[in-house]
Order: sequence, then C-alpha cells, then structure tokens
Amino acid sequence: MTQWNIQNIVIDLQQARNEWRAQQKNLKVFGGRELPSKEEIKKILNDLCGILFPMRLGPHDLRQQSENFYIAHTLEKTLYALLEQVKLNLSYDAKYKKQHEDLVEISEIAQNIVTEFAQKLPELRRLLDTDVIAAYHGDPAARSVDEVLLCYPGIMAIIYHRIAHEFYKKDLSLLARLIAEISHSKTGIDIHPGAEIDEGFFIDHGTGVVIGETCIIGKNVRIYQAVTLGAKRFEVDGEGRLQKEYARHPIVEDNVVIYAGATILGRITIGQGAVIGGNVWITQSVPANSAVSQSSATKSKV
Amino acid sequence: MTQWNIQNIVIDLQQARNEWRAQQKNLKVFGGRELPSKEEIKKILNDLCGILFPMRLGPHDLRQQSENFYIAHTLEKTLYALLEQVKLNLSYDAKYKKQHEDLVEISEIAQNIVTEFAQKLPELRRLLDTDVIAAYHGDPAARSVDEVLLCYPGIMAIIYHRIAHEFYKKDLSLLARLIAEISHSKTGIDIHPGAEIDEGFFIDHGTGVVIGETCIIGKNVRIYQAVTLGAKRFEVDGEGRLQKEYARHPIVEDNVVIYAGATILGRITIGQGAVIGGNVWITQSVPANSAVSQSSATKSKV
Amino acid sequence: MTQWNIQNIVIDLQQARNEWRAQQKNLKVFGGRELPSKEEIKKILNDLCGILFPMRLGPHDLRQQSENFYIAHTLEKTLYALLEQVKLNLSYDAKYKKQHEDLVEISEIAQNIVTEFAQKLPELRRLLDTDVIAAYHGDPAARSVDEVLLCYPGIMAIIYHRIAHEFYKKDLSLLARLIAEISHSKTGIDIHPGAEIDEGFFIDHGTGVVIGETCIIGKNVRIYQAVTLGAKRFEVDGEGRLQKEYARHPIVEDNVVIYAGATILGRITIGQGAVIGGNVWITQSVPANSAVSQSSATKSKV
Amino acid sequence: MTQWNIQNIVIDLQQARNEWRAQQKNLKVFGGRELPSKEEIKKILNDLCGILFPMRLGPHDLRQQSENFYIAHTLEKTLYALLEQVKLNLSYDAKYKKQHEDLVEISEIAQNIVTEFAQKLPELRRLLDTDVIAAYHGDPAARSVDEVLLCYPGIMAIIYHRIAHEFYKKDLSLLARLIAEISHSKTGIDIHPGAEIDEGFFIDHGTGVVIGETCIIGKNVRIYQAVTLGAKRFEVDGEGRLQKEYARHPIVEDNVVIYAGATILGRITIGQGAVIGGNVWITQSVPANSAVSQSSATKSKV
Amino acid sequence: MTQWNIQNIVIDLQQARNEWRAQQKNLKVFGGRELPSKEEIKKILNDLCGILFPMRLGPHDLRQQSENFYIAHTLEKTLYALLEQVKLNLSYDAKYKKQHEDLVEISEIAQNIVTEFAQKLPELRRLLDTDVIAAYHGDPAARSVDEVLLCYPGIMAIIYHRIAHEFYKKDLSLLARLIAEISHSKTGIDIHPGAEIDEGFFIDHGTGVVIGETCIIGKNVRIYQAVTLGAKRFEVDGEGRLQKEYARHPIVEDNVVIYAGATILGRITIGQGAVIGGNVWITQSVPANSAVSQSSATKSKV
Amino acid sequence: MTQWNIQNIVIDLQQARNEWRAQQKNLKVFGGRELPSKEEIKKILNDLCGILFPMRLGPHDLRQQSENFYIAHTLEKTLYALLEQVKLNLSYDAKYKKQHEDLVEISEIAQNIVTEFAQKLPELRRLLDTDVIAAYHGDPAARSVDEVLLCYPGIMAIIYHRIAHEFYKKDLSLLARLIAEISHSKTGIDIHPGAEIDEGFFIDHGTGVVIGETCIIGKNVRIYQAVTLGAKRFEVDGEGRLQKEYARHPIVEDNVVIYAGATILGRITIGQGAVIGGNVWITQSVPANSAVSQSSATKSKV
Repeated sequence: MTQWNIQNIVIDLQQARNEWRAQQKNLKVFGGRELPSKEEIKKILNDLCGILFPMRLGPHDLRQQSENFYIAHTLEKTLYALLEQVKLNLSYDAKYKKQHEDLVEISEIAQNIVTEFAQKLPELRRLLDTDVIAAYHGDPAARSVDEVLLCYPGIMAIIYHRIAHEFYKKDLSLLARLIAEISHSKTGIDIHPGAEIDEGFFIDHGTGVVIGETCIIGKNVRIYQAVTLGAKRFEVDGEGRLQKEYARHPIVEDNVVIYAGATILGRITIGQGAVIGGNVWITQSVPANSAVSQSSATKSKV
Repeated sequence: MTQWNIQNIVIDLQQARNEWRAQQKNLKVFGGRELPSKEEIKKILNDLCGILFPMRLGPHDLRQQSENFYIAHTLEKTLYALLEQVKLNLSYDAKYKKQHEDLVEISEIAQNIVTEFAQKLPELRRLLDTDVIAAYHGDPAARSVDEVLLCYPGIMAIIYHRIAHEFYKKDLSLLARLIAEISHSKTGIDIHPGAEIDEGFFIDHGTGVVIGETCIIGKNVRIYQAVTLGAKRFEVDGEGRLQKEYARHPIVEDNVVIYAGATILGRITIGQGAVIGGNVWITQSVPANSAVSQSSATKSKV
Repeated sequence: MTQWNIQNIVIDLQQARNEWRAQQKNLKVFGGRELPSKEEIKKILNDLCGILFPMRLGPHDLRQQSENFYIAHTLEKTLYALLEQVKLNLSYDAKYKKQHEDLVEISEIAQNIVTEFAQKLPELRRLLDTDVIAAYHGDPAARSVDEVLLCYPGIMAIIYHRIAHEFYKKDLSLLARLIAEISHSKTGIDIHPGAEIDEGFFIDHGTGVVIGETCIIGKNVRIYQAVTLGAKRFEVDGEGRLQKEYARHPIVEDNVVIYAGATILGRITIGQGAVIGGNVWITQSVPANSAVSQSSATKSKV
Repeated sequence: MTQWNIQNIVIDLQQARNEWRAQQKNLKVFGGRELPSKEEIKKILNDLCGILFPMRLGPHDLRQQSENFYIAHTLEKTLYALLEQVKLNLSYDAKYKKQHEDLVEISEIAQNIVTEFAQKLPELRRLLDTDVIAAYHGDPAARSVDEVLLCYPGIMAIIYHRIAHEFYKKDLSLLARLIAEISHSKTGIDIHPGAEIDEGFFIDHGTGVVIGETCIIGKNVRIYQAVTLGAKRFEVDGEGRLQKEYARHPIVEDNVVIYAGATILGRITIGQGAVIGGNVWITQSVPANSAVSQSSATKSKV
Repeated sequence: MTQWNIQNIVIDLQQARNEWRAQQKNLKVFGGRELPSKEEIKKILNDLCGILFPMRLGPHDLRQQSENFYIAHTLEKTLYALLEQVKLNLSYDAKYKKQHEDLVEISEIAQNIVTEFAQKLPELRRLLDTDVIAAYHGDPAARSVDEVLLCYPGIMAIIYHRIAHEFYKKDLSLLARLIAEISHSKTGIDIHPGAEIDEGFFIDHGTGVVIGETCIIGKNVRIYQAVTLGAKRFEVDGEGRLQKEYARHPIVEDNVVIYAGATILGRITIGQGAVIGGNVWITQSVPANSAVSQSSATKSKV
Repeated sequence: MTQWNIQNIVIDLQQARNEWRAQQKNLKVFGGRELPSKEEIKKILNDLCGILFPMRLGPHDLRQQSENFYIAHTLEKTLYALLEQVKLNLSYDAKYKKQHEDLVEISEIAQNIVTEFAQKLPELRRLLDTDVIAAYHGDPAARSVDEVLLCYPGIMAIIYHRIAHEFYKKDLSLLARLIAEISHSKTGIDIHPGAEIDEGFFIDHGTGVVIGETCIIGKNVRIYQAVTLGAKRFEVDGEGRLQKEYARHPIVEDNVVIYAGATILGRITIGQGAVIGGNVWITQSVPANSAVSQSSATKSKV
C-alpha cells in the first residue's frame, strides 16, 4: 500500500468518470480517444506563418535566395501534419454524431480539404498583406511594416483567424476553434473562427476584443481593445435550451472604426464609414457615415 | 578587466540589494532562498489536469483501457512533486513570520495537506463536470462538451482555480497565488484563489475578468468577459495603511448572469436569479430575480 | 510531382511576395533579412530578471552566498547576446532608411548603447524596488513583497517596460517594441516602450491596460485593470495620413489613482493626487486632488 | 540562383540516386520509405529496461511502493510503441520480398508478436537475474549486484541481446539488428541477435567482443574483452556469392571461460568446462574440461 | 481488461522481483531506492571539464576575459550537484552494509569529501596538462595541443579517470565506477577507477584498452589500443568464491611504452623505460630498459 | 565567503592556466577562443547523411516525392553552417601559425572550400553506394542493403571518413579530426582522416580497427574488427622529437581481405588480392594474391 492510498483515489476517480459518461449519453458524447492535438496544431501554425511570411516569421537563419527551398520542404511536411489533424477532427465528428466511421471516406475528404487549403495559401498571403498595410497606416506609433508584422498582436490574431476560418468553412469546428483559442491565449483577442472578415482589417492593442461567430466585417475596418461584437440575447428553444447556429452578431460595413471598449450587440448593421466612440453600448443599427459617442450624461463629474 | 566593467556593475547591484534588504527589515522580509517554483508548479498542474480528465487533457496516446494505470503512476509522482512545493511554501511562511522552522513538523503538515488534497480529487472532478456542462449549455457556439474542455479558457480558469482554492484554504497563499497567476497569464482571467465558487460556474470569453479574494459565488452563475467583482474601497488602518483580509467583495447568489464589462464592487449581494447587464456599474445590493441594465441616459447618441 | 502540387503553390506564393515587395518600394521597405529575434530577446529578458532579482527571479538552485558569481557570469553572457540584438536593430534601421550600412560604426554605436545599459542596471534595480513596495502597499491581498515579485503581472510588466524604455530612448524602436509585446502577451498589459514612468508605479490585475507612447506618469501612481491612457484623435497630414510621433497621450501626475476601466484620452493632465473612478471617460484635464466618478445618470437601474 | 548553386547539386544527387535505384532492381530493393526508427527503438529499450529493473534502471524518482503503477503504465505505452515498429518491419519485409502487403494481416501478426513478447517479460527478467549474479560472482572488482546492474557494459549488452533475440526468432531481422547495433555502439560489444545464449552469461570489459549469428552458448559462460566467436570462412555459391544463413559459428558449452582476445572460428564445439586462454586462435573443437593456452613458442622474447 | 493483459504481466514481473529480492538476502542486498544518477553525473562531468579547461571544453561562447566568472558560478553549482551524488553514494553504502544510516553524519562526510575534491582541482589541472603535453609529443599525427584536447579519446579518458580516482580514494566506489563507465562508453577505454596513474600518461587510439583496479603506472607511460593490464588469475577463497581487493594487476614503471594489443597479466613489474611490442603476451616481470617483442616463431607465413 | 571557498579555488585554477599558457609559448599556442564546435559538427554530419541518403538516413517522415525539396532546403542551411565551421578552423590555423588573420581572405577561402565540397556530394554518394554494395556482398548475415545502411557501424564510419577526408585534403585538419573522432566514439572504428580509401570498402564489426594517416587503400578491400594499419616505428628528429607527416602506414592494394586482429605496420605493401589471416603480425610487404596466416607454431595447445 502506498503512502497516499493511490489505489482508492484511482477507483474513486474512475467512479466519477463512469458517472459522467453515463450521464453524457443523451448529450451525444462517446468514449473515443482521438482528438486533434493542441501541441501539433501549434507547430503547424508556426510553420504556416513561416510559409506565408518566410523572411519575417520563418526561421531566423533563412536567406531570401532560398525562400522557395524552405517553403517547398516545410509546406510538404506541414500539409501531411495538417492532414493528420483534419482526419482526427473528421473521425471525432463521425463518432460524435454516432455515424459509421468510414476510414477510407474520411481519408478522401481530408485529402480534399487539405489540398484546397494549400491552394488557397497564396490568396491568404495577399489578404494578409492588406491587413499589414492597414495596421501600418492605422497606428501612428508604427515605425515600419516589419514592426507591424513582428510585434503586433492584432496581426497575429488575423493571421490565425484567416487560417482558422478556412477550416470552419469546411465544418472542422474543433480544429478551427483550437486555432482560435491558441491565438486568444497569446493575444487576448477572441475571434470566433466563424466570423467573416474582409481585407484590410486592423485591431490595435487588442486585449479583450471579442468577435462573435456570425459577425460579418467589411473592408478596412479598424477596431481597438476591449471592443465586443456580440450577441444581444440568446434564443431559447421549447425546452429552454439555447439555440445554436443562427445569425446573432453584428454586420460591420466597410471603413468603420470602433474605439476601445465599445459594445455592439445583436444582428444589427453598423453602416459603412461609421465611427463608433469608446465605451458606447449599441444594440440598434447605425446609419452609414454617422458618428456615435457617449451621450453628455455619461460625462464624468469631478 | 572585461569589456563591460562587469565587476563594478556587480558591486553596484550588490549595493542596491543590500539597501533593499536593510530597508525591508521592518517589512518582515528575510534573506532566505527557498520558494515554490513556478516551473515545477506548471508541470504539476499539467499532470493534475491529465489525472482529472485523462482522455481529454491527458497524454495524447492514452487509451481508455489504461486510464487507471496512467492515473495511478502519474498521481503518485505528482503528489511527491506537490509535497515538495508545499514544504517550500511552509518553510517560506515560517521564515517570513520569523518563526522557528521545524523541519519535522513542516514535513508532517505538508504530508497531511497533500493527503487531503489527493483524497479530494474525485470530488473536484465531479464539481468540474458541472462546470463543463454549464459551459456547454451556456454558449450557443459550443458544439460539444469536448470542444468546451479542449478550447474554453473559462474551463481552464475554473480547473486551475478549484485546485488553487484547496491550497488557499490550507493557508498556502504563495502556492495558491502562483497557480492563479499561471492561469491568469494563459487565459486573461484573474480569479483570486480565495474566492469561493459553487458548482456549475461558467465564464465565457473571459479576457479581463477579475474576481476578488473574498467573493462568494453560488451555483450556476454565468459571467462574461471583462466583468469585475471587486472591492469598492480599501479600509485603511490608523497609520494609513491598507487593511488586509476582511470581507470586501460581492456575494453572487445562485443562477445569476453577469454580462460583459459589468463592474460590481464591495461586499454587496446580487440576489439569486438576477441578470446584470453589460457595462453596468453596481455598488449596492441587487434583489433576487431582478434585471439591471444601463439607464437610458447612457444610451449612445449618433 | 507531389500529391499537393507543392511546386505550383510555391510559385504562387513567390508571386504574391513579389507583388508585395514591388508595392512596398514607396513605403521604404527592403528585402533584407536580419532582424532582432524574439526568441533571443526572451532569453535575454529572463537573464536580466535574474540579474536584477537573483534570489527571486534567478535560477531555482541559486544560493545567496554566490549571487555575485552568478550575476557576473550571466551578465557578461547576456550583454554579448544583447549586443547582437542591438546590432541587428541598427542594421535594420540603416537599411530601412536606405542609408549606407557602416558595419564598423554600427558596432561602435551598439557597444556604447550596451555599455550604458549595463551601467544603468543598479539604478533600474533601485527603481524597481520602489515599484515592488508600491504593489505591496497598494494591494490588500498581497501577503509579502515576495508574493508580489513572484506572482504579480503588474510587476513583470513594469520590469519589462523599464528595460524596453532604455532601448526606446536610444531609438532602437524595434527591439523596444519586441520587449513590450513579449510582456503584453504574458500579462495582458500593453505599455508602449515610449511611456515615461516615474518610481513607485503599480498596476493591479492589469488585463486590458493600455498606456500610449507619449504618456508621462509621475511618482506613486496606481492603476487598475482595463485602464486606457490613450490618444483622443489622430492628427492627419495633408495627404490624409496619420501623423506620427507627437505628444498625444495624457500626463498623469504624482499620487494619482485610476480605477478599473477608466478611459483617459488626449494630451491632458490628471493633476496630482486625483482619484479617477472606474469606467469613467475623460478627455479633459482634471485638477489636482479632485475625485472623478461617473455622473449619477450612469448609475444602473434595476 | 543561390550562392551554392543548390539546384544543380540537387539534380546531380537525384541522378546518383536514380542510378542506384535502377541498379538495385535485381538486388530485390524497392523505393519504399517506412522503416523502423532507431530513435523510437532507443526509447522503447530504455522503457523496457525500466520495466524489467524498475528500482535500478527505471526513473530516478521511482519508489518501490509504486513500482507496479509505473510498470503498468509504461508497459502499456511501450507495447503500443513497439507494435508500431513491428508493423514497420513487417511492411518492409513484405515490400522487400515483393509480396502483396496485406495491412490487416500485418496488423494481426504484429499484434501476436507483441503479445507474446509481453508475456515473456517475466521470464526475461528471471534469465537476466542469472546474468547479474554471474557478473557479481565473476568479477573480483564488483562491490555489489547494484554496481553490476548500473555500471557493467556486459550487463547492458546481454539485456539488449535477450530482447533483440526475441524479435530475431520472429524473423524481424531489421528490428533485431537495430537493437543489437544500439547496444554495440554503447558498449563496444557486438552480439548478433541470432546468437542463442543460455543463463548466467557474463562478458567482462567487453570492448571488441564479437559473437556471430549462429553461435550457441551454454549456461554460465564467461567471456572477456576482444573475444571473437566467428565464422572461419564463408561458403560461396555457384556464382561466387557468399551463402547466407547456415550454421557457421562456434558452440560453446556450459561453464566455459574464454579469456581476452581469444579467437574461435567456425562451427566447432568448445566442450563444457573448458578454459580458453587469452589471445589464442582456435579453429578446431576443444574437449570438455581442457585448458587451451598459447604454445610456448608464442611466448614473447626480451 | 486491456489488449495486452497488462495486469497479469505486472503481477508476474512482481513475482520475479520478489524471488530475486528473497534470494539476494544473503548477498547483503536491500530494497532501497536512492542511487547516484548517471544522468546527473554526466552533467557534473561536463561542467568539471569546462572548469578545468574553460577555453577548450567550456561553453562555446566563453571569452577569456570572463573565465573566472564562468568558473566561479559553474563551480559553485557543480559542487552542490556533486554533494548530492556523494550523499546518495554514502546512503547506499550504509544501507548495503546494513549499518544505521545517520543522515547528519553522511552530510558531514559528504561535505568534507566535496570540499577536498574542490581544493584538488588546480592540482588536477596541472596533472592533466602533463597528459596533454605527453599526447602532443607522443603522436606524430597531432597538429597542436588543442587538437589533442578536443579530439583525442585518450585525453577524455584520463580526465575522467583522474576525477573518478579521487572518489575511489574516498571509498565512493559506485560513483567512481559510474564515471569510469561513462568514459568507457564514449572512448572504448576501460580504466578501473582504482588504477594509480602518474603524470604524463598517454593512450593513443585507445579502443579496447583495459587497465585493472590495482594497476600502478609511473610517469610518462605511453599505451596503444587494445592493451590489457589485467589480472592473471583470480584467487578463490575456501568456498570457491573469487577473492576481491588484493593487488593483482601490473606495475608499469616510468617511461614505458606498450604497443597495441599487448596483454600484460598479474602483479608483475614492467621496469622503467621498457618497450613492449604489439600483441605480445606477458605474465612475468620485464627488466628496465628492455624491449619485448613477439618471438620469431610468431612471424606469419605466406 | 562561500561554503566551498570558491574564490581561492578560482584563483588557483587561474594560476594553473597561467603557468600552462606561459609554458606553451614555444609550442606555438595562443590564447584565442574560437574553435570549431563538436556539437555543430554533429548536426552538420547528421544533415549531410540525410542529404546523401534521404530515404534511409533523412527524417523519418520524409516522402520520396519530396526528396528534392528536403535536400535543397537542408543543403542550403547545412552549407552555411559548414561555412562557419570552416572559417573557425581557418582562423584557428592563422592564429596558431602566428600569421596575420585576414578575415576577408579567410572568408573567401572558406567559401571556395565549401563550394567545392558541395559540388562533390553527388560523387561522394556514388562512392558510398559502392561501399554499401560491398558490405551487402561481404557479410553473410546481411539481409538487405537497407539493413546495411541502417545498422552497420562500418558504413557509418566510411560515410564520416569520406566527408572528413575532403576537409583533410583542404588542410582543415582540426575539422577533419573532429569528424573522425565523432565517428570513432560511435563505432569504435578509428580512421585517420588522412587515409586514402578507394571504392567498395567494407569494415565488418569494426570495433578496434585503426587506420593510420598515410594509409592508401585500393578498391574492394574488406577488413574485420581490431585490424591495425599502423606505423612501425616513429622517426625521431635530431632533438629526439617525433617527426610528423611522412609516409609511415601501409599500402593495401585492390581486393585484399584482412581478418580480425591482424596488425600491419609500416610503409609496406599488401599486394592485390592478398588474404591476411586473423591475428597475424606483419611488418614486411606481402606479394599479390598470397595468403598469410599464423605459422603453425602459433597454434594453440590444449
């Protein structure tokens, strides 16, 4: 017998797991074990950053003359690693939905998804270039586009988001969400992978920003720290449960600026060119080119 | 002589340390060196997560059939590692209070604390299961309980908090605080280990949440990003110093929901079933089942 | 031909890079490759923390009797590593400004910068000691100065900031910014390396704090989570571009306290001893010793 | 174009590989890529050593009270890792023999091999215990059985050999050979995995020992450094090629001692209890209980 | 039940261990678990090499100007690490001899041993310098003393041996033996830590050299690969067991050269200045200044 | 003062180093610090093995379709790493010979050496293929060419030798020797990088083989363990010092076989097709196609 009475604790823990597993039956949960791995995904993301911006986010000793060698080799390796994670996500989904898990089919689907993703990389790079430019133009403190790429959490967040969104569109929600949370943990910026974000997007400072699943964001939108683009209230079904997957977050049109701490809730539209002041609370649509600020009553008193 | 005149800098730094140490005498500080190690505690926490949720947070190649082998081995190793950290905390406290440091007594106390903690693990698991369920039911974007467990910073924060709180209750405040800050750094959620939190607790998004030391939170409470449950003002003693360790944070009763950015300050009570709107500022108790929102005056103007 | 058609993707990515590089010509960008390395800087910062606070942030097995040996060896090694990063920053700047890159001159400048930095370390330590004391006195939950030093994100943020600020003053903005963002990612506190901060500074909780480039902060200032010291609006030049590098952030005088979520914008002055309440929005100067809180109209309604 | 003209070198290397691959056709070689991994096998061997001798070769912080937990968990993990390597060896063999590679069949065979191997571990431990005792009794310099187990290369060599031999018997010659060469590289002792070695075997010092594939060695045999148990000459087939896989190495019966540097060649028998002197050269059988030493003529002259 | 029937195998392995432990009672063995750690000792040896030869075997980025800082810091750290290993060896010995294990006494003895060892390091360095010179002068292929120090296995073997011998003299045979075997595994040179070796010792090539426990070797001796300085026969006690710890290996006087493959057995004396030819077999003393070679009869025939 | 009196030991060690440095003046030694790094060279060698045999010695997850990507990227990186080591060797040589150290010239020479080496890689691969074939045909125990490439220490030794020899020919003796000793430590085979070895070379088992600096070995030579191809005696100059760098080792012509333990000394010639028996001692040339074995007198007696 050990000092800690390990055996008993192990049995008690097993009992707790058994209770959970029994209870989860009607929650469509299963006892499977293969899940995408956060550690693997982190490595894949690092490599994808290097592939997209080799001379800035690639290995420190890379030379421009050999960018293509580096990219070709890393891309090949990374796509295989990604294929593995995509398969794990698909297997998980099949088990979760209690479907028959057809390994050959899963393998084919995964292959297609990864192939499409790979072909999209040049387009992603071009899109991200618009974000870098937007950040450089949008922040008076930015000294160069390189400073933006190396230092700005908002840039990291949009790189990770644009990758995550590709997998979200393929219904790989677990993989997409894992990417989003890796980014959230590093940057304090929480963008749901479902959000649709057009070119030239810039988040400055970023800590505390929350962008919901069904947001649609236009071109050249600029956002500051602690901005929430959230749901106003949650629809509840007949049994009192939250309804999932309906449009519940704002539409933000082109050229909108939203200052720090603003809270914008519900499926409303912020019209193009609008400027939303700091700390305001908005639950109704805002016309194009208007400016919203706190009412005078909210001015502080000395 | 070196290029940098190292020797002089070293002597100057020593002088600075000597000044500090002289000055700290009346602050009950000492020159000791043994402190709990953040790196060790991180490893212990990782292993505890694996022990509590082996198939989700344990090693990637674990199989369900061998959960118990893994848990038994890891638990035994982890408890010894924990014992070491507990002893370091106790030694530190003894030195800090200028008490005689009785190594045999410390060893016995540490052994008891770790034994009790170990026996509590199954209960912790059951408690955490209620948190997982609460998150799954509380977020329309959650696709499965597994997504919750793998991706949600709020879940990581509550796992770490429930562990830290056990050590807080045993007066191991340094150890407890280190656990809390490891979690804070990863999730942006800052829960003081002293806070008492009942079952079914869920924090969504979470960045910027602050929960103070003497908070008491009931069952099935839901909280969003940037919520503060803080102290209103700090009591000052006769010499103008902040008083420590008195009840100064809110009581939040069962089934309360607090939306993003709300600030609730002081030893007030948010009655059960109350709904606190986003961005509100509350310094007085709120009756049960009421809804608090910003007054119309705070509505934004276009 | 590979499964993924790697060759084509590589060529497309090259095309995207070529477009970017062509487009960036008038943005004074270049194809160089040597940049300060975030990984190297992280190691240097860890070592500097150990050099400044050897018995608290140095290696776990260090003994007080041998502090000086450890410091001498680590300092020497770290200054060489730092020299490398400073040179990379200077080279980058020369290239970026399309100046001739004089390696001998760069080497001399770098040597001088690092020598001065090294000599300033004892002063930095003394300054940081005032910050530690301020945190200990400023938080009722703090049990000891050691808990403060080991656990408080606000302390890490000020250590990193005081280091970054030294390099900012030497115009090494890339290096300074990288240090600031390493700290931001770990603590959620975003202090621009340009901010001038006097002794005894304390940020509690800290997540979401933003302090702008041209802020000037006096002695013994205390700040809580989610406080913004920002620019009110950005000046635009004749061509509609944001102007950079002019005084645009607040001056905060001695002994000011700013509670959580307050937003203070523009080159205004918060007079000494003022107390700024939580969540207020301030765009005009505040007299000394005054207290600002939300107007009653912002009180919430039930 | 790169500085090194990489592209041309890559093409030339490809040309060289193509020539080799063309030439190897009639050597029954193939272009496959899955092979057992030396790094993986090293980890498996380390774990097997810990499983067999937990308190001596297991992890440093293991406690006797928890041996079984450690063994259960490690064994489970190790057997899966081993299964992978066994499958890779079987796939390789199938390809090499240009057989159809039936993945289901391979999986079943691998499963059976690993299961049998696992069940044999207790027997292996008992056998190895006889080797440890033999070493302790056989070397006047040995202070304890623990010194033997921790320090003697001869013990490491026999542990690795007894494991390798199990896989040799299952026709996994690549896996077996890899294990043998890992041991050879560490100890300087080269035992072909095919050699049959009975209990109580001890090699002292060991550097340069070579034991051939078809050796048969009885109980309680003791061997010193640089002893060769080799083939006398290689049989050649009609086409002048070396014949493989026939009995061509010595039989060494029970209780034989062979001193350093002795060379024993061919399918001859060293009768039980014989003592073979150092540096002798033997190509004919030696009767039981006899002593062989260098003839006087080989005595050295001053 | 698991796939591999782990539980049964675990129980069978336990049974095997129980049998062994029962059987070992009369071999003065015990169930303890604390033993010096090979991994720890490897690190200590690396650091000692750096301390002894900082600019050749120390860290790659060391500068001569800061040798002393490096040495002071590393020495302090290494002596504490060594203290730990010495204590483990002493505890083991106490248990093994079934003595009472007095932790205070062990701690004092360990402290004294390490203190003495530390004070001996400058002397060790001077001694090793004579070995380096001997190697440089003794090998026509040596281009510089630095090549000798960096590349020659014979130099590594003598550094490790001179360290191991210090611990052998303090009766720490397990620690001493572990050091010897770490060296043996890397170099193929097997020197028992008990061997007494005077200054200016050089082993060229070295693979297969064996030097026994009670050897005494004079100044400026040169030895080539595969030389054995061994015991002729082992004394057996009344019960037929090998006797341990009596003088049984050769004395080699000053300035002797022994060519490759020579075997010299028993407590005989090789007189000073003697030259022993390759491959000879010697079991009787050799006069000073004589040359021994193979008799003509051993010449090979065509 | 520290427990160990570190300061005094540091000073004593410094004194010892000063004595050595003073004494070494007339040995043409210097106080420099830049030397090729064994750790770096190990990495370079691993990568070169992967470049030469991508599907066997390259990364485990490599696929044949992407060999060229892997090779291009790795080659580029490796040549830069090699360039660094070549420069360090050249700097060392310049300092050692007390020549002016012209960094630009060194850089050019290094560039040329590495460029030539890179272009030679395809030829090296072809040469090594002949060695692999020779091993496969030469050992009855070899099951496949892959087993040879993955498991045979003789193959590793010849790969490393052929690389080392290229640098030896460029007078980079320190780099060449470091490569040779890395191989020696792993395989027990000690080939001086100066040895000239033609195609189809095979060493079986290998432990203890020594091949001297000025050996010349023809095509298709086969050698067994513990064979020495050495110098007979060392020439001494007027002052009694060993002369360096003259032809002093054997010439071994095509198709020779040398069995285990044979010792062949001096600048003699083993004629083509000769077979040298095990353990023989040869100091005079041997005619072509002859067989040398031990004289009958060396037969052992029972």
